[in-house]
This record gives sequence, structure tokens and C-alpha cells, in this order.
Amino acid sequence: MLVTLAGEAARRGGTVTVSDWAFYRDGQRQDADYDAAIAAARDRQGFVWIRLHEPAADDLHRVAADVGLHPLAVDDALDQRQGTKIGHYDGLVYLVLRRVRYDGGVRDAGRLTVLATAEVVVTVSEGDPDPVAVIAERLEARPKLLGHGPAALLYVAADATVDEYTATAETFEADLTDIEAAVFDDASGNQAGRIYHAKRELLKLQRAIAPLGTPVRSLSQHLPDLIPAKVQTYFRGVADHVDRLHAQLGGYDEIIGSMLQANLAQLSVAQNNDMRKITSWAAIIAVPTAIAGIYGMNFRDMPELRWSFGYPGVMLLMAALCWMLYVNFKRRGWL
Amino acid sequence: MLVTLAGEAARRGGTVTVSDWAFYRDGQRQDADYDAAIAAARDRQGFVWIRLHEPAADDLHRVAADVGLHPLAVDDALDQRQGTKIGHYDGLVYLVLRRVRYDGGVRDAGRLTVLATAEVVVTVSEGDPDPVAVIAERLEARPKLLGHGPAALLYVAADATVDEYTATAETFEADLTDIEAAVFDDASGNQAGRIYHAKRELLKLQRAIAPLGTPVRSLSQHLPDLIPAKVQTYFRGVADHVDRLHAQLGGYDEIIGSMLQANLAQLSVAQNNDMRKITSWAAIIAVPTAIAGIYGMNFRDMPELRWSFGYPGVMLLMAALCWMLYVNFKRRGWL
Amino acid sequence: MLVTLAGEAARRGGTVTVSDWAFYRDGQRQDADYDAAIAAARDRQGFVWIRLHEPAADDLHRVAADVGLHPLAVDDALDQRQGTKIGHYDGLVYLVLRRVRYDGGVRDAGRLTVLATAEVVVTVSEGDPDPVAVIAERLEARPKLLGHGPAALLYVAADATVDEYTATAETFEADLTDIEAAVFDDASGNQAGRIYHAKRELLKLQRAIAPLGTPVRSLSQHLPDLIPAKVQTYFRGVADHVDRLHAQLGGYDEIIGSMLQANLAQLSVAQNNDMRKITSWAAIIAVPTAIAGIYGMNFRDMPELRWSFGYPGVMLLMAALCWMLYVNFKRRGWL
Amino acid sequence: MLVTLAGEAARRGGTVTVSDWAFYRDGQRQDADYDAAIAAARDRQGFVWIRLHEPAADDLHRVAADVGLHPLAVDDALDQRQGTKIGHYDGLVYLVLRRVRYDGGVRDAGRLTVLATAEVVVTVSEGDPDPVAVIAERLEARPKLLGHGPAALLYVAADATVDEYTATAETFEADLTDIEAAVFDDASGNQAGRIYHAKRELLKLQRAIAPLGTPVRSLSQHLPDLIPAKVQTYFRGVADHVDRLHAQLGGYDEIIGSMLQANLAQLSVAQNNDMRKITSWAAIIAVPTAIAGIYGMNFRDMPELRWSFGYPGVMLLMAALCWMLYVNFKRRGWL
Amino acid sequence: MLVTLAGEAARRGGTVTVSDWAFYRDGQRQDADYDAAIAAARDRQGFVWIRLHEPAADDLHRVAADVGLHPLAVDDALDQRQGTKIGHYDGLVYLVLRRVRYDGGVRDAGRLTVLATAEVVVTVSEGDPDPVAVIAERLEARPKLLGHGPAALLYVAADATVDEYTATAETFEADLTDIEAAVFDDASGNQAGRIYHAKRELLKLQRAIAPLGTPVRSLSQHLPDLIPAKVQTYFRGVADHVDRLHAQLGGYDEIIGSMLQANLAQLSVAQNNDMRKITSWAAIIAVPTAIAGIYGMNFRDMPELRWSFGYPGVMLLMAALCWMLYVNFKRRGWL
Repeated sequence: MLVTLAGEAARRGGTVTVSDWAFYRDGQRQDADYDAAIAAARDRQGFVWIRLHEPAADDLHRVAADVGLHPLAVDDALDQRQGTKIGHYDGLVYLVLRRVRYDGGVRDAGRLTVLATAEVVVTVSEGDPDPVAVIAERLEARPKLLGHGPAALLYVAADATVDEYTATAETFEADLTDIEAAVFDDASGNQAGRIYHAKRELLKLQRAIAPLGTPVRSLSQHLPDLIPAKVQTYFRGVADHVDRLHAQLGGYDEIIGSMLQANLAQLSVAQNNDMRKITSWAAIIAVPTAIAGIYGMNFRDMPELRWSFGYPGVMLLMAALCWMLYVNFKRRGWL
Repeated sequence: MLVTLAGEAARRGGTVTVSDWAFYRDGQRQDADYDAAIAAARDRQGFVWIRLHEPAADDLHRVAADVGLHPLAVDDALDQRQGTKIGHYDGLVYLVLRRVRYDGGVRDAGRLTVLATAEVVVTVSEGDPDPVAVIAERLEARPKLLGHGPAALLYVAADATVDEYTATAETFEADLTDIEAAVFDDASGNQAGRIYHAKRELLKLQRAIAPLGTPVRSLSQHLPDLIPAKVQTYFRGVADHVDRLHAQLGGYDEIIGSMLQANLAQLSVAQNNDMRKITSWAAIIAVPTAIAGIYGMNFRDMPELRWSFGYPGVMLLMAALCWMLYVNFKRRGWL
Repeated sequence: MLVTLAGEAARRGGTVTVSDWAFYRDGQRQDADYDAAIAAARDRQGFVWIRLHEPAADDLHRVAADVGLHPLAVDDALDQRQGTKIGHYDGLVYLVLRRVRYDGGVRDAGRLTVLATAEVVVTVSEGDPDPVAVIAERLEARPKLLGHGPAALLYVAADATVDEYTATAETFEADLTDIEAAVFDDASGNQAGRIYHAKRELLKLQRAIAPLGTPVRSLSQHLPDLIPAKVQTYFRGVADHVDRLHAQLGGYDEIIGSMLQANLAQLSVAQNNDMRKITSWAAIIAVPTAIAGIYGMNFRDMPELRWSFGYPGVMLLMAALCWMLYVNFKRRGWL
Repeated sequence: MLVTLAGEAARRGGTVTVSDWAFYRDGQRQDADYDAAIAAARDRQGFVWIRLHEPAADDLHRVAADVGLHPLAVDDALDQRQGTKIGHYDGLVYLVLRRVRYDGGVRDAGRLTVLATAEVVVTVSEGDPDPVAVIAERLEARPKLLGHGPAALLYVAADATVDEYTATAETFEADLTDIEAAVFDDASGNQAGRIYHAKRELLKLQRAIAPLGTPVRSLSQHLPDLIPAKVQTYFRGVADHVDRLHAQLGGYDEIIGSMLQANLAQLSVAQNNDMRKITSWAAIIAVPTAIAGIYGMNFRDMPELRWSFGYPGVMLLMAALCWMLYVNFKRRGWL
Repeated sequence: MLVTLAGEAARRGGTVTVSDWAFYRDGQRQDADYDAAIAAARDRQGFVWIRLHEPAADDLHRVAADVGLHPLAVDDALDQRQGTKIGHYDGLVYLVLRRVRYDGGVRDAGRLTVLATAEVVVTVSEGDPDPVAVIAERLEARPKLLGHGPAALLYVAADATVDEYTATAETFEADLTDIEAAVFDDASGNQAGRIYHAKRELLKLQRAIAPLGTPVRSLSQHLPDLIPAKVQTYFRGVADHVDRLHAQLGGYDEIIGSMLQANLAQLSVAQNNDMRKITSWAAIIAVPTAIAGIYGMNFRDMPELRWSFGYPGVMLLMAALCWMLYVNFKRRGWL
């Protein structure tokens, strides 16, 4: 859904098309005219949320100018080389959140940027589906929280992002459990490649999550002007969540290490089983070969050769010895 | 035992059924009417302990309202996603303790939540058997400690939980000792799977215990209004206990690492013994085969073939050579 | 391009030839006479940048004297045993940056030294190509940044150096990906030597980058006289970049560790495949040998020997058994 | 030697039998009547040392009451669940030291508890031989040190305990050196079990020594009333000693890790030597078997069979080939 | 060169023979009479350096008394159980430096003790050659530095010691490079023993260097009375050097770890090559054995036996098959 803003920006020479905008007062979305909403927000009678999805840089700058965000902050926030970070220019907080997906590998899922003042919040989202939908839904479902103003939006954005990471970590764990099953399944052979791949992806995941702690922790402690004490407590919860996630990934790391070693042990056992099987059969065959060799000797005087039951007797002896060996090896688990 | 509270809550529109309640003064349980007990507690003449076991959220809120606990604290304390944590709203401390069991695997054993003010303590317990019974017993057995009021109850709850963790760790260690014996027992083969499983469970155990340190340490240092200096000392002891437990689990971790490597060495030795045994036998059999081959050659002029003791002589030679090899291999420990 | 400075130094007894010099005012390079430029800089009307490429110590000292840099600072900055470091004598900051190259191995690529006061910057560069060209280009492309004076030059020098390190790390990573492919390619055999070599080079790279954090972090926090707040923010960005680089190299280290273990597993599998192949063929050959031995026995009464289809029948039997074994081994993946 | 104290305790209703007691003034042991000694100590004219060896709890409490130690401190100090720790109640310091022995395994060697005020020291020792004898000897040998009063006794007790740990670590190191020799001795086989055992014992040793640092460091910094500055310096030396000991045990840990890996390498070499030996012999035997097989073929036209030197020639050929193989394998170190 | 001091000590009852002494003023060694030099130093007109090499304790005490060093400091500095450390009694700094050598193993190379006041420096050196010669040479080559007085001597002593450690580390690294070459040289076999030995020696080296950081860092920050700001900067350089050395040794440690693993991989490859070679030859021999067995069968009707080119044909067939196998194995790199 594209919406055209007809505010000061328009008067200053053009209209901006955004994916959506909303005006919230007292924890409820209000129907309002855009200019009236901005005016009300300036009087601290609620706040305006403008949502942009993969906007042109130009559009974003015009929106920013329209609602009075400092252009430097916008530049800094949008610098594509930046990862997850927090910044603040007097009265403005911007939170950049890098998102990830996992589909057998860790993939970049675009960025979610939240620029918030006491009056207005601009979100810039990337990727498909637009993560902002989830945030709006969660936010509007909790009027009490929404009543805390822009801080609530920052919180829900951070919380939703951490939930995404958690879900990603869980998908990763499911893969890990698959590999684990394969390592200890006698039929599936060497898993070193898969374990190694998991290690690489885990490193990517850890590198993606690592920068999240500082911004969230900082929002739970500083910026009292923008973040009410109650919302600070919520941020504390998110920060704890990030810490738990970290510890969880650290645990995966240790598990991968143990898996590599267990895989080696399993391999060694499986390979040895094969070798034992082959050499056991070779040993079984060696016995009749030796006996046949003996009765193939050309001594003039070998009485057994003339016995009428000599041949069948020797054949039976061979069969019996082979059978004994076979049973013995079977009993030892070598065959 | 279910008890119906007939206090202000009742007057405000309903009765609440709790699993038990008690009134303590000067380190002794007192017989008293519920309203009188609450009144006495308000005058700081002792304190009331209300015990709920897996209550409906509604019941808990009514009890909380009845004794004047802040509903936000109750919500926060009861949030099922929360792990072990401590919180305080002015005059109210709530301690959430996650409990674990170990039965070959680490299992969640429910939560124990203690909400304490200077006048009243509400405990909410989960799991079977109800851990509150042990706490009540321990508490009433130490009147001097109980004389310190609600802080004593917080202490005993924390202490009992740490003791549970310690017992869990000991059960785990017993399993570890079993695996260790199996690793060095020549007959029991590859233990990589069991060691790996122990590693996973240890990680769970560590993750369960990790959040315990902060609340307990914090109760040993802060909140002087609620926790008397003497009880702070006790909390210090509990915190030291948690630290020792941590170090202990860290030691298990190192042991598991060494076990994985020792297992590999043991495997390698065991497998090599098998291979040596098979190939030794194959070598023993190869000798008569070779000799028989020689006397199976068709040279016209092989005098031994005509000797009357040729055949038995060669057979004896074969037997002797096999015997020599057998003894030699046996002496080297290859058979 | 060599330029002869005709300033006070010349008057004090000689001319100094530098590779280039420039005068900047308000973010633009200005055409000016050297003496006039120096005079303007002394009035804080812009600053002079003097570039030396691998100068004789004497030349550098004469330039330093000419523009009024403290000789002790120059000595300290030029001490060849020094690595990356920062120093400051009242009003003078000097930043020494060690550069590296990677061409299968980590190589020293010379030093870049920046000596900056509020009026003048002297850069001393080593190595080919001269890194100063890139810095000048980057700087002159950003007039706003250049408007911040010498601090901008310090920033661009640090930023360019970190970018060089990042590029080096990426070249290294490409090598790592090559080795990784070779480890998991069944045809390429033992990669322990290459992995080990990568470990050594990574350690060199880490040792080269490690000393970079402190100077950059320090420029983002201290020396407010020389570094404007805006440029401090840029240095903060560089410092974050160094931290990310560190984490990245730490990740490579873990990857190398996993690679060594995965290589062992791959080796073990590959070797076992070979052994299984050889012993499987030996087992296949052992069967006709045993049967032939049986029909080579000299029993008087072996009816098969007189059957007219005896010989071809036995040959077929041998072929059939070999075929069965072959198919069986093939099916198990042993051949 | 048991001594009966006839002091105030006696007057209050009983005598206490202690293993020894002494009165020290100006760095010398003094002959004195018990009541007079106590009185002198109260006037700060020296101090009294009462030694108890594995006393009944009751006896200890009576001694404590007699010399005025706070009963709570005594209870805390004697709590059997406590490990090495320090505590202080106004004017009273108590130091609990857990001692260990090593005899192939780390064993608990009882506790040594020192309760010290400015006037009197009570030591409670466990284990055989009584460690107090050594302390008394060391103390009385250094009158200058002894002149510092009870602090000197605390110091010597701590120092002697650390010396015991050091001796224990050295015994452990000797065992480690034994294992090391066995690992690299080709004849002694798999040492994984012994190395693993050493790891477990080292963990116990580390766990025993770990709690020692805090009390000793604390005595080197705090409690200036009881510990003169000079003795603080001595405690600093002890704390440094504990730190060195820690580093030493950490080194053992790394050595054990390397040993486990070296053991695997040695095992692999030793096992391969065996396999090579057996298969080399098998290869040597295979050659005459093949040649004999050739001359056992029934071709009508095999001229060699009729040569008179055919048989001895072939036998010589076989012997020569076997010899060549044997020499070749020997030269390669396979036999 | 032994010199007899004829100062106050002499007047107090004896002469002391020292290895050398010198008087420095304004950065230059001065010719002076001993008593005059001491007097000038007392007036802060330069300082006296007295050098003792492995003195008798008595001699040292007499020198110390002569120049007014506190006997307790001397005792503490000379305590043979002490390692590298720094101490200070008002106005006196003493620096004890433990030196090491490396000749395939890390050896203790004696101690160098510097006792310095503002007027006089006493150095006590051990080991051969006397390290003091190098220090004197370095010091006198830098008159400007020497002008800073006793602090300069402390600096040069610390710097020279760190340089010795660096040289030791480089010798160690050369050994490491040798082992590395041997690990990857196919002919040199198992290097586990050498790598393990290197690990042990590295631990010794690390333990020797570890205590160096604190004293040097402390001299770069504290004691402004004795150490001028300029010399503090030099000490900062030495401290950075120690840190770099530490990082370098840490790098060796990681390299040794990787070497142990690479050694295992190399071993595994080398051993497998041997096994493959032997079993390949066995497989080659098995083919003619099987064929010979076939033509050794006693079937009445085997037409090939009567062909006149039967025997040479079969021999050619055998040779051809062996050749094919040989070429095949050679091509696969198994022979």
C-alpha cells in the first residue's frame, strides 16, 4: 500500500510516496489528516510513524526534511557499510538493525532502521516480507505499551529483531541435531564436511548477533529523555535475551567442537569394522587354501590320498574349520 | 492441603484457595486467624507466608491484591519466558528460581517464585514434589534464622535451590564416572556417543546454573532494608557455593574434553589389537601354505618326496614353525 | 614529482627536496607560494601538507625544523624498531602506521608516518606504490571533511590503512576458501601443510593489526584541541572497523582449527577407501586361489577331475564367485 | 602431649585438655603459669597460643569461652562444609586452611584453623602428623618475626600451608615426568589412562588451591589493626607464591593436553610399526608361495622341471628373493 | 678487574673489593677519587655506580652500609627464592631481573639486581659473561640518556634484559622452524617428542618472562621522584616490548598446538603410504599365485596344459597382469 504524504515537503516542491504512515495517541491509532497529525505531534499530543520500504535515498531525505530529522543522522543511519548500531544526535535516536535468515546457510536479510524523536518515528525497512508489518501488529496489540510513545516502537523493533535471531538460532540448532544424528548413525559415514560447514555458519551468526548487545543495553540505561523508565526495563529484558542468545551460540560452538571429535571416533570405528570384516573373510579363506596346499604335495607316500573317504573327509574338515572360524568371528562381532 | 483465605480479598468479592499459609513471629509459627495475622504483620509483629502451588493466574492476582503486592511485579515474576532472576519494586523483592532434575538428561523441574515484602511472603511453586515443603521444614528447624523475617525465607529458598543443583551435579558426576570406567574398560568399545551426550547435558546444566549467581550475589550486597546484615552473610555463603558449583561444572567440562581424546586413544589401541590378532593368524597360516606349495612343485628330481619320512617330517616342520610363530606372537602380546 | 622547498630551511642553509607539498584552505587545495602558505597556516588560515617518500633522515629533520616540529618527536616517530603507535608532544600528534601486504604470505609493506600540528602536516611514507597518493585523492574528494583541517588527514590516513588491512584479510580469506575446497575435495589429499602455513600467516596478520586499535580509539576520545568532535566520530567508526576486523581474524583462527580436524577426518576416510579397495581385491583373488588349491590336491579319488565339464565348470564357478564378491563390494562402496 | 588448662574455664565448671599451649613475649617463649599468661596477654604483654588437635566441639567451645572468642566465629570456623576461607568478627580473625596430600591421587589432609585476636591464638588442627609442630618450630626459629605477635603466627600458618601445596605440586610433577617418559618410551604402550587420571587429580589440586589466594591477599592489604605493615609484606610474598603456584598448575594442565596428543601420535607410530612388521613378513612369505605355485602347474612342457639343478635352483631363487625383501624392509626400518 | 673501595666502609673496619665502580656527572664518566665521588653524589652532583659480580653476602652488606642502602632492602633483593620483582623503600628502588639462556632448553642464567637511590646505584650480577659490561657500554654511548642519572641505569638494565629475552625467543623460534621443517619433511617421521619438548620449554620461557611486565610498567608510571618523565617514556617503550614479546610467545604456543595436529596428519599419511606400498605388492603377487593355482589343478581334461606354448603363454600372462597392476598402482601413487 503506497501513500502520498502531502505535508510541508510537498509545499517545498514535491510529494513523497511512503509505504504507510500512522498517527498514534494514547496507545491508539487515530484517523487524522497528515498535516494535522504532524501538528498534534509537535504539541506532544501523540506521535507520527512513517514507514518506508526500500526507499530511494532522495525520498528518504525529503521525508526527513519534512519531519525535521537532521540530514547527517540520516546519512549515517543509511550508510550501507554500517552494521547493527545505535546513534543519537540531540533529541534523535536512530537504531540500525541488521537482520539474518538461515536456510542451510546464514543469509543477510536486509536492514531495519528506526529514526525516532519525541514526535515522529521514521522506519526504513529492507527485505521481503517487510518486517514492519509484524512490528505494527505487535505494537497495536499492546495499547498500554504503545502509550509510552516512540520508545515503545524502538523497543518492539529491537524485540522483534532479537526474536528473529532466536528463531534463526533454533533453525540452526535443528540442522545441528540432524548432523548429530548422522554422526552417530553407523550408516551415514563421514560428517566432517557438514560439521565444518555448520561451524562456518555459526561464526557468521555470532558475528551478526554480536553488535546487538551494545545498542540494546545502552537503550536500557541512557537517554532518559526519550525512553521512559518502564520501557528501559523492557530493553533490559531484551538485553538479557541477547545475552542468553550469545551463551546459546557459544554452547553450539562447543557442541560442534565435540562433534568433530566424536565424528573422528565414529569414523575410526566404522572403518575398522569394514577392515575387520574383509580381513576376517580373508583369514577364513586362507585355511582351506593351506589344507588344499598340503594335499597337493607330491610326496610318494601320503596314505590319506589313497583312502576312499580322503577327499570328502578333507572337504568336510575344511568346511568345519571355516564354520568354526566364521562362528568365532561372528561371536566377537567382527563379521 | 488446601486452605481458604478469608481476608480482604474475600470481602472484595471472592475467596482464594491456597495450598497453605502460616504466620511467624519471633522465629516460631503462631496459631492465628488470617485477618489478625495480616494485621499483626502490618504492625511488623511477624510476617505471613502464603504458599501457592501451580495456582491459576487469577488466584495469584487476587492473593497479591489481598496482601498488597504490586500487580506489575506479579506479572513480571510470573512471565513463563523468564529464567532465574531477581527484581525489586520499592519494598518488594521477587526471586524467580528455575529448578532442574537429572535422570540421564537435564530436565526442567519447574520454577519457584518468592515475592517478599517486610510483612508478607508469597511463594509460587511448580513441579512435583512441591519444593516448598522442604523449605518450610528447614526454616522452622532454625528459629534463630527464622527470627530474621522474610529475608530468612528468601535465603532458605535460594539455599535449597542451590543444594538441588549441587545434588543434580553429583548425579551427573556419577554418570560421568560410569562413562569414564567404560572408556578405560577394554571390553566396552567406543564411548564417543555417551561422552558427546554428557557434553550436551553439561551445557544445559551450566546454562541453568549460570543466571543464579547474580541474584544471590545481589542479595548479599544490596537491599539492606529487607535483608539484615546477618542474612547477607548467609547469602554470601550461598553465592560462594554457586561459584564453587560453577568451577565444578567447568572441571567436568575439561574432563569430558580429555575423555573424548582418551576414548580415541583407547579405541585406536583396541582396534589395533583386533587387527593384529587377525593378521597374526593369517601370517601363521601363510607358512604351511608356502611349504606345501614347495612340495607341490612338479620337479622330477625332488629327493624329499621319495623319503619315507618325508611327508610326516614336513608336517612336523609346518607344525613346529606355526608353533614358533604362535609363541612369538603371544610373547609380544599380539595374540 | 620532486619539489624543492624554498622556505626558512633554505635560508638556514640549504634546500630540501620533497615529493610534493600542498596548501589547503576551506576544504580546497590552493595555489600559493610556499612561504605565503606557511605564513597563512600560522594565522590558522588553512594548513600545509608536506609529503616525503623514503626521505634521508637529514632531509626530514630539515623539514621538521623548517615547520617547527619538535626534533624529539621526529626521532621517536622515525625509530625503525617501532611498530604502529601514536604519540603526542604538546600540540603535535604523530601517528605511525605499519602496512602489510599478502601474497600467499604476510609481508611488511613499509610504514606511513603522519606528524600533525594545527598548522602543518608532514607525512613520511615508505613502499611502492606511495600510499600517500590514495590519501590525497580521498581527501580532496571530500571538501567538507577536508575543511576540518589536519585532523581530516589523520583520519583519512588511518582509514586508508585499515582499508588496506581489510583488503589483506580478504585476500587471505580467499586463500582459506581455496584450502577449504581442497580439504573436502577427495582427490587433493593431505592439506595439513597448507593449513598450518595459513595459521602462521594469520598469526602474523593478527600481530600486525593488534596495535592499531589503541591509537585509533585514542584519537576518537582524546586530544580535543586537534581533533574536532565531528572527526572524533569518524575515528570511532574506524575503531569499530578495527574491532570488526579483529573479530573476523579471530573467526579465521577458529576456522583453521576446525579445518585441521576436518582434514584429519577426510584423510582418514580417503586412506581407508584406498586400503579397502586393495584388500577387497586381495579377497576377490583369494577365492579362486583356494578353489584351485582344492582341485590341485592329489587324492586318488576325486570324481570331478574326471568329469569332462569339470575344468570349465570350476572356471565358471570361480568367475561367478569373483563376480558375486565384486558386486557385493561395489554395492557397499568398497570398490 | 596433653595439657590441662586451669583457667577461668575451669572455674566456670570444668577443665579442658589441650594438646599444648605456650606464652610468647618479645619473640621468645616464656615459662609462665596459664592464668598469669592470660593476664599478661590482656595487658598486651605478649600473647598466648593454645593448640588443639582434633578436639571435641565441646572442648573447643569451652576454650573459646575461656579466652573470649565469639561463639559465632567459632561455629563458622568449624563448619565442616567450609573450605579454605577467612573471616573476621571485630578484633578476631579466623583463617581456615584445607590441606591436601598427594600419593598418586590428591587426598584431603584435614584442616588447620587459626583463630587470632591481639591477645590469644587458638589453632585447631586435624590430620596426622599434626601440622602445628612445624609451625611452632618455624616460628620459634625467627624471634624477630615472632615479635610481631599473633600476625606472625597467621603468616607462618599460611606460609607453611602454601609450602605444603608446593611440595604436593612437586610430587605431582614427578608423576607427570614419569608419565611423560612412558609416553615417549616405545615399549610402554598406551598411556591415555594415566594421563587422564593425572588430569583429574590436577583438577582436584587446582580446586584445592584456588580458594587460597583471596584470604592471603586480603591479609596483605586489610586488617591493619591486627597485621603490622611488615607482616603484610610477608603476606604479599605468600600471595605471590600462591599466584606462581597457580601459574605452575596451569602449565601442568597445558602439558597434560599436549601429552594426550603426543600419546596419540606415539600410539599411532607404535601400532603402525607392528602392522608393518606383520605385513612385511606376510609379503616375504608370499613370494616363495607364488614361485612354488608356478612350478606346481601341470603343463606338459615345462623344461625346468626336468633340469637336474631345477629344484635346488628354484629353492635358491626363493631364498634369494626372500633375503632381498628382508634386507630391503630392514633398510627401510619396517622390520 | 677488581677494585678496592677505600671509603667509609674501610674506615668502619675493612675494605671491600668490587668488580668496578664509576662516577658519572652530566652524562660523562668522570675520573675521581672514591670519597670525593661519594661526596659529590651526596650533593646531587652526579651519581656513583658500584658493580659487584657474584659478591659474598658480607661484601654486599658492607657496600650497602657504606653507601647508605637500607639493609632490609638488601636482604629482600638478595633472597635467592625471589624471581623478577621490583621493590622500593623510601628513596630506594631495587629491581631484580632473572635472566635466561636457551640452548635447546631454557636455562636459568642468573640474576641481575639493581639497587638505586638518587645518589648511588649498586648492581649485583650473576652468570658468565657479566651482563653489566653490556649495560655500561650502552649507557656510556648515550650521554643524553645518562644525564638523567640513576633512572637511566635502571632503564638500560631493564631494556638489556628484555633484549636478552627477545634474543632467547628468537633462538627458540629458530628451533621451532627446524621442527616445523621436520614435520613436513616426509622422510623425518614422528616429531611428537620434539614438539612436546618445545611446548615444555616454551612454558618455562613464558613463566620466566611473565613477572617482567609489572615492574617495568610500574617504573613507567610511578616513582616520579626517582624516574624523570622522559625516562618514564622509555620505560613505557620497554613495557610495550614486553607485551609484544608476550604476544609472540602466545603465538608460538598456538603454532605448537597446530604442529601437534599437523604432525598427526603427516604421520597418518606417511604410515598409510607404507601400508599401501606393502599391500599393493602383496596384491601384485597374489595374481600369479592364483593363476599358477589354476594350472596346478589335476583335471584330466585341461587342454592348455598340452599346448606347447601353454607354459610360456601363462608366464607371459602372469607378467602382463603384474605389470598392469604395477602401472595402475604407480599411477595412483600407491607405489
